[in-house]
Amino acid sequence: VADKVAHFKQDVWSIFTPLAAQLNAVNLGQGFMNFPPPDFVRQAAIDAINTDGCNQYAHPKGRSRLLKALAKSYSPLFNRTLDPETEVVVTAGANEGLYAIFAGFLDDGDEVILMEPFFDQYIANITMNGGVPVYVPLRPHGDTNKIMSSSDWKLDINELRSKITPRTKIIVLNTPHNPVGKVFSKEELLEIGQLVQEFNLLLISDEVYDRLYYKPDVHERIANLPGLWEHTITIGSGGKTFGTTGWRVGWSIGHKDLIKTVLSAQTRIVFCVNSPLQEAIAISLEEAEAHDYYEKHISSYEQRREKMCKALSDAGLPYTIPQGAYYVLANIKGIKIPEDYEYPENLNGRPRDFKVCYWLAKEIGVVAIPPSEFYCEGNRHLGEDYARFAFCKTDETLEAAAKALLKLK
Amino acid sequence: VADKVAHFKQDVWSIFTPLAAQLNAVNLGQGFMNFPPPDFVRQAAIDAINTDGCNQYAHPKGRSRLLKALAKSYSPLFNRTLDPETEVVVTAGANEGLYAIFAGFLDDGDEVILMEPFFDQYIANITMNGGVPVYVPLRPHGDTNKIMSSSDWKLDINELRSKITPRTKIIVLNTPHNPVGKVFSKEELLEIGQLVQEFNLLLISDEVYDRLYYKPDVHERIANLPGLWEHTITIGSGGKTFGTTGWRVGWSIGHKDLIKTVLSAQTRIVFCVNSPLQEAIAISLEEAEAHDYYEKHISSYEQRREKMCKALSDAGLPYTIPQGAYYVLANIKGIKIPEDYEYPENLNGRPRDFKVCYWLAKEIGVVAIPPSEFYCEGNRHLGEDYARFAFCKTDETLEAAAKALLKLK
Ligand SMILES: CSCCC(=O)C(=O)O
Ligand SMILES: CSCCC(=O)C(=O)O
Repeated sequence: VADKVAHFKQDVWSIFTPLAAQLNAVNLGQGFMNFPPPDFVRQAAIDAINTDGCNQYAHPKGRSRLLKALAKSYSPLFNRTLDPETEVVVTAGANEGLYAIFAGFLDDGDEVILMEPFFDQYIANITMNGGVPVYVPLRPHGDTNKIMSSSDWKLDINELRSKITPRTKIIVLNTPHNPVGKVFSKEELLEIGQLVQEFNLLLISDEVYDRLYYKPDVHERIANLPGLWEHTITIGSGGKTFGTTGWRVGWSIGHKDLIKTVLSAQTRIVFCVNSPLQEAIAISLEEAEAHDYYEKHISSYEQRREKMCKALSDAGLPYTIPQGAYYVLANIKGIKIPEDYEYPENLNGRPRDFKVCYWLAKEIGVVAIPPSEFYCEGNRHLGEDYARFAFCKTDETLEAAAKALLKLK
Repeated sequence: VADKVAHFKQDVWSIFTPLAAQLNAVNLGQGFMNFPPPDFVRQAAIDAINTDGCNQYAHPKGRSRLLKALAKSYSPLFNRTLDPETEVVVTAGANEGLYAIFAGFLDDGDEVILMEPFFDQYIANITMNGGVPVYVPLRPHGDTNKIMSSSDWKLDINELRSKITPRTKIIVLNTPHNPVGKVFSKEELLEIGQLVQEFNLLLISDEVYDRLYYKPDVHERIANLPGLWEHTITIGSGGKTFGTTGWRVGWSIGHKDLIKTVLSAQTRIVFCVNSPLQEAIAISLEEAEAHDYYEKHISSYEQRREKMCKALSDAGLPYTIPQGAYYVLANIKGIKIPEDYEYPENLNGRPRDFKVCYWLAKEIGVVAIPPSEFYCEGNRHLGEDYARFAFCKTDETLEAAAKALLKLK
């Protein structure tokens, strides 16, 4: 086994998703929908399967219909006319896109700055490609025993500046943010962008939740800020946008010199992305506006967010109200578990939040994700007081969770 | 751009597949089918799209129905009862499977022995993961200006032995072989397997064409030979098996300790494989025998192979009759092209077979793949006298190619 892989522990998703099934608990763990994609999206996939040529290899860049649909749909968002052939590349999910970017840009020892907490896969994506992750915190300001807003989780820009070294190559931004729900404000983005330009860095802007932000917040795109287009790769996700997390169709958008490198790496990693679901996402993008899809999508999630927050309030758990995405961080410090409580073997040596999440699943009947996994090894304790609840679920599921969580009172 | 990616040239597929479309030439280049998958396979995909839960993340291992179907379908082939949970992992195409294996096992400087020629992606898959490819030739024995059999392309086992060093970690075997069409005999596999055991190596057996071998040859599985199960990861492909190269569903099978490492790497690379097409491949495997699929599949390809070979004979091109897979290597040494013939810019500096393949596409109207790409940098000349024709195409296409190739006479 290679050194760069040998130290990996079992990933948090492979622990808690099967656990939910096994315990028959309400699953608010991993961020996938437990309802079908919209009919027009599903129909698009069926049409693609029945279309000549849609079942064979795509061009490594992506199918041309999808490249065009992405260019068309993102051009207004980026205030520029995107060239589908050179400024967009389709990836096997946003995750493989990230991996390909790191593979394409990192030499051994290059440093990548992550804002902590961060989506857990980032670290492995970086280290497997020879990079060294460097961490800068998003710190909650205020009383974490009360209800807060994700805007209270703040980056100290001078702290970020202090982490930049001659080996720094990339800063990763994630907005809307998983797991905090923070939507970075224009002012915050300007400050980050300023450092990116000053130190001539590459910025990866992971915006997979870009279609999910809640009023009065708006999702600002850092690639739009003056001087940042040449520095930024923006990542998007068909799965998050259309409720099809299992289709594994993501994309990276940016300056053609950047995209060329991503393409070169990803051609060698996966060769190409599955064709029929690419075509289906293309059709979905083409038809989304006609179905008023994006607005309905946001407002349905607004309602889910409300349900989720109310459930936590009713259960007496303080939490952070998310400005975007579909997760809520709840403070679980107050939950007391008997000293002699027994945990399954695969939780040995894991931090307290893993144990609380196991207990929640077993005794309360609700699965959440332990956020210590979103902190680096040395900072796991910063996540230990939280549990992350995903609300991309049906009303029935959210109501069942609300009911179960009342047992905490 | 990272050093390990910066030197990549445009891949051969991205040159010749678009060229075929652009010139409206008969495309016998990249190995994909230009006919739809069987109805039961297509229907399986539609059913999956309409199934609850089939559009969301799968477990990184693969969907349980597919793991079970693979275990069931491969158990008799491997003469053992495979455990679906630990001895099988689903990958985003066989290619990403290979990448994940190299990521999982290679430390910087570890050597991987490839039999040359080899599927072009191997090199990048190895070097991006810090490995060093080492080459041992498959040499044609006999008169390459006459029709040969792919069994005439031979590995010298002592030459293979001489390439093993203390840094050697992996040997890659590919049978049925792309591009030669060779199906390794049991005697050949025993010799290779003997070295694998003697030097305690890992063997990657790329068997993506395992359902395509032509009588009287049979596809022997090296993992079945005494003592080799613990050393071997066998790779398979849903795309090759069911005519759905664009679905990106492949798998790796082997001892649980080996599969655990592949899973650990691939979880970080792609997280999981697309769900609906995994389910569709599961259903297809379940239903294949009832449709007599494998036998019909082989006999339809036997007919295609005959058509292809006859077309080359009629055109006066010598070739190697493949024992398996769907490619024929033709000898193009005799084709003379005017000195002042003009080539597009992206062929600058490429070997003679690239130029002949361009000329064939433009002047004869048939696209083939230049096999120099299947040799390492220093050995490109060994591929220069050949062109690889893919015959996974409709009768009409093969007939159109036959007609066009007559212009060579
Ligand atoms: C590997 S899980 C993908 C991201 C997500 O859905 C989550 O954070 O729950
Ligand atoms: C990247 S192409 C995949 C393999 C194949 O089909 C070929 O060799 O033509």
